[in-house]
Amino acid sequence: MEKWIQGDERIDQLIGHELKIIQSPSVFSFSLDAVLLGDFAQVPKHNRAKIIDLCAGNGVVGLLLSKKTTSSIMGIELQSRLANMAERSIQMNYLEDQLSVVEGNINDTLKWIKKDSIDVVTCNPPYFANEGTSIKNPNSHLAIARHELHTNLDELMKVTSGLLKMNGKAYFVHRPDRLLEILDAMKRHRLAPKKIRFVYPKENKEANTLLIEAIKDGKDNGFRILPPLIVYGRDNEYLPEVKEMLYGKNS
Amino acid sequence: MEKWIQGDERIDQLIGHELKIIQSPSVFSFSLDAVLLGDFAQVPKHNRAKIIDLCAGNGVVGLLLSKKTTSSIMGIELQSRLANMAERSIQMNYLEDQLSVVEGNINDTLKWIKKDSIDVVTCNPPYFANEGTSIKNPNSHLAIARHELHTNLDELMKVTSGLLKMNGKAYFVHRPDRLLEILDAMKRHRLAPKKIRFVYPKENKEANTLLIEAIKDGKDNGFRILPPLIVYGRDNEYLPEVKEMLYGKNS
Repeated sequence: MEKWIQGDERIDQLIGHELKIIQSPSVFSFSLDAVLLGDFAQVPKHNRAKIIDLCAGNGVVGLLLSKKTTSSIMGIELQSRLANMAERSIQMNYLEDQLSVVEGNINDTLKWIKKDSIDVVTCNPPYFANEGTSIKNPNSHLAIARHELHTNLDELMKVTSGLLKMNGKAYFVHRPDRLLEILDAMKRHRLAPKKIRFVYPKENKEANTLLIEAIKDGKDNGFRILPPLIVYGRDNEYLPEVKEMLYGKNS
Repeated sequence: MEKWIQGDERIDQLIGHELKIIQSPSVFSFSLDAVLLGDFAQVPKHNRAKIIDLCAGNGVVGLLLSKKTTSSIMGIELQSRLANMAERSIQMNYLEDQLSVVEGNINDTLKWIKKDSIDVVTCNPPYFANEGTSIKNPNSHLAIARHELHTNLDELMKVTSGLLKMNGKAYFVHRPDRLLEILDAMKRHRLAPKKIRFVYPKENKEANTLLIEAIKDGKDNGFRILPPLIVYGRDNEYLPEVKEMLYGKNS
């Protein structure tokens, strides 16, 4: 497999999904959050939908979604090194017919993707606001993935809404401390929040992650808080639902 | 104890709290939600604060809070029959020096309570919007307690904000399907949401209740989702945290 990797990259298995993915500790390794988003996002099974994964990183969310749909999935990634890793992972899994990745800023997507044309948008965006005082990773690859250096919540919701068809669905993974901003930004951009699932590291801990579904031009009613997703049991082992997401059904 | 009760009323014990309360199946019986709110609300222990419980019903929240503070607690209740029940429960528990109840519409409170003078407001309001088509209980006592016939979320937040001092705290119990409206109404009335705790009937069920804390003129940051409160275990018995709220520490 060495022909696929460069420098400090390695090939990891997405075990439950029979997928391989190129990772690099100094550039980008996917987190549990990407796996949660891949599980949470509802995509049509058929091959007629158009799916876009914004802030695609090394392409993990698109790879995971390819197991749930035969529709085309395009990742958009700002960092050329990451876009290149994602491209090679797609080839390594022989998924070039379904998956693609484009290097670019999400704010430019509407210059070359038709407005109101996408069925599903997913995104695992940078979580932290770009406040002048905040400490950022000196590694710019990691800093860009974590801090809103090149985009922010308002731009993200604006682009998502612009891409989506009426009644198209958007799925985000984010941090609970930004929930109020997320809801405000969605409201400004015609995205109606429909479902939230909170992820709690343990049953007695505050939520550290949220998954949210919104529908473009959706109605205001029918908002739901889905069952809690608790990651670790009292023995610090993954609980069954998370174990299955990571390692498959018979793990 | 019969001197305290009328008609179909009965006296229930709030066991873990050494309190007695007058209930009536045809007028008002408190639910678990009131107990959750009494537990969730943070009140100063000392006797110098002013606490108001809006939509007080039979006074259960005020009674529960009396175990956590020596400050004065005033309930406001629209229905005279319920205000009268609450009054008798206060007397029956010898709490007249700390607790009181006033019959009236919450929207009128600022005519006789000084603006910006209250430290903590609590409320277990009617949960259901007053839509012309919705089916209401033919019993008007129960309909008023459940449907927004005499108030609504916007008025509730307006009154709460008007009553509270700067940095005063508000606590509500409500339904998750109305979360977006609650947050919007809070924003319109200078109440900054700070903490939400979602209550899930079982670990694999959607949340059916939420508890929310807001601070008047609070900062926008520091929003938290508290650990999940799961009511029943797999054996359909109350889980320990809820059991303790209902029946006390050594239940």
